[in-house]
Amino acid sequence: MHFADELIGRVRDLGHPLCVGLDPHLDLIPESFQKSTMRADDPATPEVVQAFCLEVIDRLEKRVAVVKPQIALFEQLGWRGIQVLEVLLDRCRANDLLVILDAKRGDIGSTAEGYARAYLEPGAGLGADAITVNPYMGRDTLTPFIDRCSAHGRGVFVLVKTSNPGSGDLQDRSLEAATVFEAVAEMLTEDCRSLVGPDTGWSSLGVVVGANFDEQAERVRQILPEALFLVPGFGAQGADAEQAVRAFRAGSGGREGGIVNSSRAILFPECESWETGFEAALGEAIDRLAEAVR
Amino acid sequence: MHFADELIGRVRDLGHPLCVGLDPHLDLIPESFQKSTMRADDPATPEVVQAFCLEVIDRLEKRVAVVKPQIALFEQLGWRGIQVLEVLLDRCRANDLLVILDAKRGDIGSTAEGYARAYLEPGAGLGADAITVNPYMGRDTLTPFIDRCSAHGRGVFVLVKTSNPGSGDLQDRSLEAATVFEAVAEMLTEDCRSLVGPDTGWSSLGVVVGANFDEQAERVRQILPEALFLVPGFGAQGADAEQAVRAFRAGSGGREGGIVNSSRAILFPECESWETGFEAALGEAIDRLAEAVR
Repeated sequence: MHFADELIGRVRDLGHPLCVGLDPHLDLIPESFQKSTMRADDPATPEVVQAFCLEVIDRLEKRVAVVKPQIALFEQLGWRGIQVLEVLLDRCRANDLLVILDAKRGDIGSTAEGYARAYLEPGAGLGADAITVNPYMGRDTLTPFIDRCSAHGRGVFVLVKTSNPGSGDLQDRSLEAATVFEAVAEMLTEDCRSLVGPDTGWSSLGVVVGANFDEQAERVRQILPEALFLVPGFGAQGADAEQAVRAFRAGSGGREGGIVNSSRAILFPECESWETGFEAALGEAIDRLAEAVR
Repeated sequence: MHFADELIGRVRDLGHPLCVGLDPHLDLIPESFQKSTMRADDPATPEVVQAFCLEVIDRLEKRVAVVKPQIALFEQLGWRGIQVLEVLLDRCRANDLLVILDAKRGDIGSTAEGYARAYLEPGAGLGADAITVNPYMGRDTLTPFIDRCSAHGRGVFVLVKTSNPGSGDLQDRSLEAATVFEAVAEMLTEDCRSLVGPDTGWSSLGVVVGANFDEQAERVRQILPEALFLVPGFGAQGADAEQAVRAFRAGSGGREGGIVNSSRAILFPECESWETGFEAALGEAIDRLAEAVR
């Protein structure tokens, strides 16, 4: 498998680049699931999160190409949360969904090896198809992840220009001839080129660029023409669909070049009650958002 | 509790700033413990890691002030590894050791809340006294951690200038009037000042600065006079003791201002066999390294 080829192939088949963020915020889980205090340290809470997420995952097959679990929301439940994540990853595989684990890891070589082994190694309980990583520590810290892309067809998304309000504190600072986020993108050019897929021309080394920063996205696209974009910040975080796909470009499947993530709008759609309304509300949310970013 | 006051108080009592890195690399664990294939995906391996680390932790009481578990090496063992980490954190508390969890987390607000809840909240199974965090995403992403420092007396160490070979790729790049790592340090000045302890004058907002970059450490010290330094890269990673404490300064307990981490030299000292030689070798390693950085 080549991650980018596989992902873009599925996006073409489905006709939309929507990615569902599996962010089970405890205070947003529907009441009918709440069989615990819903505190993170209640040992009964992980089961609630599992039951809820499985219901969601079972409604995603053939509707989206890819899901993005946010590992922090499982880590806050302790080891039982990680056990739940393992169950969910199994179910995603069974439902033929690609998985990008949103872990934003980054550490020196021997430690990054541990992370790469945990999340990108074939057979790992927590194995995913791709992972998000943080570039602050430099290119050598990305190597163990990039090695798994070459060896096992995995993918990696490097934080470049994130969607949060403070992302400019560092990322927008000007270097002599560029900004920090452009320097990060430039640091990735060689690896990005080396991981281009034979079928689609897209690279398994992707970048995270917030939907709300569409001008910066165009600049990153110039530097990394083959990088897949993982675009957060669409919907709940404020950016519109046109901004979210600004850096996509004409491909054989229409305008393409990445995926647009939505978490809350899909996991927690407005509906009168879970039992009577959730299934329809979730379906409508996917259809509406998919249409918007198509 | 105020983290920096507590840590520096203990460092003064012990007379050295040595921190033991709990990095249980599977290929380095003594043979007599190896009751599994020692592969990360063997469900028997976490027990081996636990048995080994407990033996080490039980030999650290009253010898060092603080330990630094590297969470990646537990994550690579899946949920069972996180369960082991929980057991180890309990034992550290029982042995009166402070714990800095080396997790290098960083994410947008609502997600960083999850990490802060997982690792810095009182009562959390994986609760530590301090955590390492990554500043790439900006100051707002550090807020949930800093809030726990104010509210619960925890500490946080922000990556500023790391010890790995590629740390210059981004951190040493020149901005208009400084470098990226200096910009990160400048971003932290206000929070650092707000978390200064009443007893020692040291701040619970610390920074990670590699031992091998002593000149950069002096520059960071100028920008953040009250920040505790967490210094990796001493010993196994090549820097000497003089470099490691370059940014320490005169305090009421002698030269102080941080802690110097050593992992492999203490966990895996050279000795003929675990049964007959480990205890002595570990003690000698601690004494030798503590003396060096005293």
